[in-house]
Amino acid sequence: MAVSPPAGVSDGALTSAIDAFVAALGSERVLTSEEDLREFRDPFQPHSWDTYTPSVVVLPETVEEVQAVVRAAAKHRVPLWTHSTGKNNGYGGAGTRVQGAVTVSLRRMNKVLEINEDLAYAEVEPGVTWRDLYEEITRRGLRLMGSNTDLGWGSAIGNTLENGFSYGVNGSDQSLACGMEVVTADGEVLRTGMGAMDGNRAWHTYKRSYGPTLDQFFMQSNFGVVTKMGVWLLPAPDIYMPVWVRVWKEEDLVPLVDELRRLRLARALEAGPVIYNTLIYASAFGRREEFYRGDGPIPEATIDEIARKIESGRWLLRAGLFGNETVVDAQFSIIKQAFERIPGAEVWGTKHAFDDIPKLQHPGELVTGGVPNIEANHITGWYSENDGAHISFSPVVPADGRELFELHKVLRRTLEQEAGLDYMVGSTSVNARSLIHVGIIAFDGSDETVARSAYDTAKRMVGKAHEQGYGEFRAHLDAMDEVAAQYDFNKHAYLRFVERIKDAVDPVGILSPGKQGIWPRHLRPRGNGRPS
Amino acid sequence: MAVSPPAGVSDGALTSAIDAFVAALGSERVLTSEEDLREFRDPFQPHSWDTYTPSVVVLPETVEEVQAVVRAAAKHRVPLWTHSTGKNNGYGGAGTRVQGAVTVSLRRMNKVLEINEDLAYAEVEPGVTWRDLYEEITRRGLRLMGSNTDLGWGSAIGNTLENGFSYGVNGSDQSLACGMEVVTADGEVLRTGMGAMDGNRAWHTYKRSYGPTLDQFFMQSNFGVVTKMGVWLLPAPDIYMPVWVRVWKEEDLVPLVDELRRLRLARALEAGPVIYNTLIYASAFGRREEFYRGDGPIPEATIDEIARKIESGRWLLRAGLFGNETVVDAQFSIIKQAFERIPGAEVWGTKHAFDDIPKLQHPGELVTGGVPNIEANHITGWYSENDGAHISFSPVVPADGRELFELHKVLRRTLEQEAGLDYMVGSTSVNARSLIHVGIIAFDGSDETVARSAYDTAKRMVGKAHEQGYGEFRAHLDAMDEVAAQYDFNKHAYLRFVERIKDAVDPVGILSPGKQGIWPRHLRPRGNGRPS
Repeated sequence: MAVSPPAGVSDGALTSAIDAFVAALGSERVLTSEEDLREFRDPFQPHSWDTYTPSVVVLPETVEEVQAVVRAAAKHRVPLWTHSTGKNNGYGGAGTRVQGAVTVSLRRMNKVLEINEDLAYAEVEPGVTWRDLYEEITRRGLRLMGSNTDLGWGSAIGNTLENGFSYGVNGSDQSLACGMEVVTADGEVLRTGMGAMDGNRAWHTYKRSYGPTLDQFFMQSNFGVVTKMGVWLLPAPDIYMPVWVRVWKEEDLVPLVDELRRLRLARALEAGPVIYNTLIYASAFGRREEFYRGDGPIPEATIDEIARKIESGRWLLRAGLFGNETVVDAQFSIIKQAFERIPGAEVWGTKHAFDDIPKLQHPGELVTGGVPNIEANHITGWYSENDGAHISFSPVVPADGRELFELHKVLRRTLEQEAGLDYMVGSTSVNARSLIHVGIIAFDGSDETVARSAYDTAKRMVGKAHEQGYGEFRAHLDAMDEVAAQYDFNKHAYLRFVERIKDAVDPVGILSPGKQGIWPRHLRPRGNGRPS
Repeated sequence: MAVSPPAGVSDGALTSAIDAFVAALGSERVLTSEEDLREFRDPFQPHSWDTYTPSVVVLPETVEEVQAVVRAAAKHRVPLWTHSTGKNNGYGGAGTRVQGAVTVSLRRMNKVLEINEDLAYAEVEPGVTWRDLYEEITRRGLRLMGSNTDLGWGSAIGNTLENGFSYGVNGSDQSLACGMEVVTADGEVLRTGMGAMDGNRAWHTYKRSYGPTLDQFFMQSNFGVVTKMGVWLLPAPDIYMPVWVRVWKEEDLVPLVDELRRLRLARALEAGPVIYNTLIYASAFGRREEFYRGDGPIPEATIDEIARKIESGRWLLRAGLFGNETVVDAQFSIIKQAFERIPGAEVWGTKHAFDDIPKLQHPGELVTGGVPNIEANHITGWYSENDGAHISFSPVVPADGRELFELHKVLRRTLEQEAGLDYMVGSTSVNARSLIHVGIIAFDGSDETVARSAYDTAKRMVGKAHEQGYGEFRAHLDAMDEVAAQYDFNKHAYLRFVERIKDAVDPVGILSPGKQGIWPRHLRPRGNGRPS
């Protein structure tokens, strides 16, 4: 094996587990060579300090094969790490929290099992990407559109399980998902919601269970392996209107967020708004050297120049309206009036018939319009075309302009002064009342010193956000424990409760140990309470 | 004591527990007399077969007192049953699943702890009713409105924990709740979502946790006692328009539901539509004897007469539009056009400024408009002014007209032929894709034979719905096990998993044993698997 087994697991145990995986899946779907494992590591961590790389990758194709893998892992006490498909860039990629764990890649479970046009939902497997779902809808000629994330290579299930958001009508909070099938640590299969009844007709139409609803219990957790999920879709609207708002001063973020909150609460701006700062928008279309060649963070005056050159302003908001033309027109008029209260603000939008959406040129307008692409990945190349890297840092903030702006300033100052890096951020309006301030800490991954500084600064920013009263919605593998430690109400009562559940539903501790700081008993680093 | 302790609990253990409750709360907040207990039984079960009555009721006023009660119950191994406030009529009232359990009534925890006008949420305790919240908003002169249920005496937390719905903009699915505080079976306190971080500023604005989100885990479960919750509110809209649709034939339910689904998916009809049949609407305003004096179910021709007399049609849909006047006008025009495709359908609505809503006369228009009242309770009196009773029977059905109509026919036939009772139903559109078909089995509670027949028929309807592929969203105490037994996928894998969690988080089994069919190990009736 190219990678050693995890601490506490003997070579013999891992070999026995591999034998069992091969017996269940065949040898071609059990990967152990260095070459095969490469794409399952954290892609942005310098190789010399690999700490999140699996020793084995298994590729089940059916639920029964997932069950067999889980049972073999339990028998030989080998930790697994589930990865649906996609990249998870900025959060550790497909890497495993425990070095040497066995990655269960679900990329070959890639069937769209059902699409119900009348009720506007699909049932998908974890290997189904946004792109796959879009193509299947198109192939069948259905009048439906999906709510997509920035990168079409991602898994609809994987993104949902990480509390990811998407930009369409079903993108807020957890509205996308409805009803799951899950393999638990004992190798059994259960279904959530109405699916707990064999043959129930409402599984993917009703969000709750008789009894506690477990869909969100299986999000950001290590309590099971999700093998099917209902995904809500939107019937083709008459009109899609991508909407843009541009403001020119850094402090314009304050009224921009306040107007956005009021519009969202009034349901005039329905679907997934995101606010880019100048540099993240610049990175989506060009590389840093095209704009600035100095060391250290790009100076304020140069950012203003870039803002004019790429016509982004200092903050650029993108959103979408979908529906009947009269309603869309009325909503746009309300939106325009609201944002134009900000001096210098510009608001524009163009109307498109559903069938014309794929002809749009702007990748962001395509994404919000339900047509997946991967253009946004360009941001990774900001500091280096071939060795570009980034870490995401993503606190949750109430939709209050002053609060967001003050936090932004603290985080920007920290990154610029302590790591000497540019601050690139996209704030996503996950609902009317809160935003996730997704900072992209981009760096040149070929420079180990810079990489170390980026990783360390990202961790320090966790504490800086906490001091202001904010926590991250998600974390890089490298900071999962540090972020969990910030959730400290009543001596980490939440984490202690969740770990009690972990011990009950996965007593051997094989499912994704360490995910979101949740460890099985034998690996729990510091007893029940977590020091900060 | 007026009521004996639960099976398996000695008189001495209960007495010791009572002593501990008195030590913690004082004797005036520990009730044991027959008179005091009366309102905490199932109000509609004839007294001679009382099976869901507590032996003690405790009335904590603070979180610390709830903790003390839970710790005392654990020490003396006495089962508790949580009741926030309100009536829970039709589902067993404040009655306890286990005869003789100790009811923890949270009615004295009735503080509105916070209202944030900008972010449009409140933080409330379990004893806060819809009416209390409305009055506090009004008292403070805030430009906010709530999403209410039919009966203003209900608890916002209690209704949410039962997977209840409400008729406002935040009434679909679980959109009302955001962030909870919970006392667990060991007497500890945890907070869900961002509240897991002490002092986090986004607790009631962001719906998820870092790690698994537990809000829905504490709904319809017996894993904790919820002591605080965030409740989302709506900023005062320019215009509120109650919308009504009336159709005249029984089979018009098919196109009515199909048009409703399309409108909801297109987001033209946003807030909580409900579809009444003639008799449930009649019961809200009159008593049966005013319309019909014969035995057995009211004949078809008479129902048609009543439909004309009370101007309800055979099906009457109520919904609400909220927002900017231009948008409301456009939405109403779309709604009118859609429903008027049904021959004979009538659609109407009237526009009201926010400040004029309290002046409306129709209790249903007040409810949808955010002004709580208790007029809908009139339905209980259908068969008897003083001894009126009812059981609710509530399957979840995809929003497909034909499916709902076929199920309706089966259920109506069962109730009419097997119990000889009128079929009264309100179908609530909990989201665009599904409805809860809430059947009200009304009867004269003074007639024990009729009551027994009603209770037994309700149980049989559980099986009838299952045969068609549907399950209940909630159940009367008397049918909780029977409904749980229908959720049979993979030998009740969901229930077995949930009970494994129950054993971990409540090992002594003191919190609401039997709720939704979830029993602690020592009371589990038939091992892990449930026979049907």
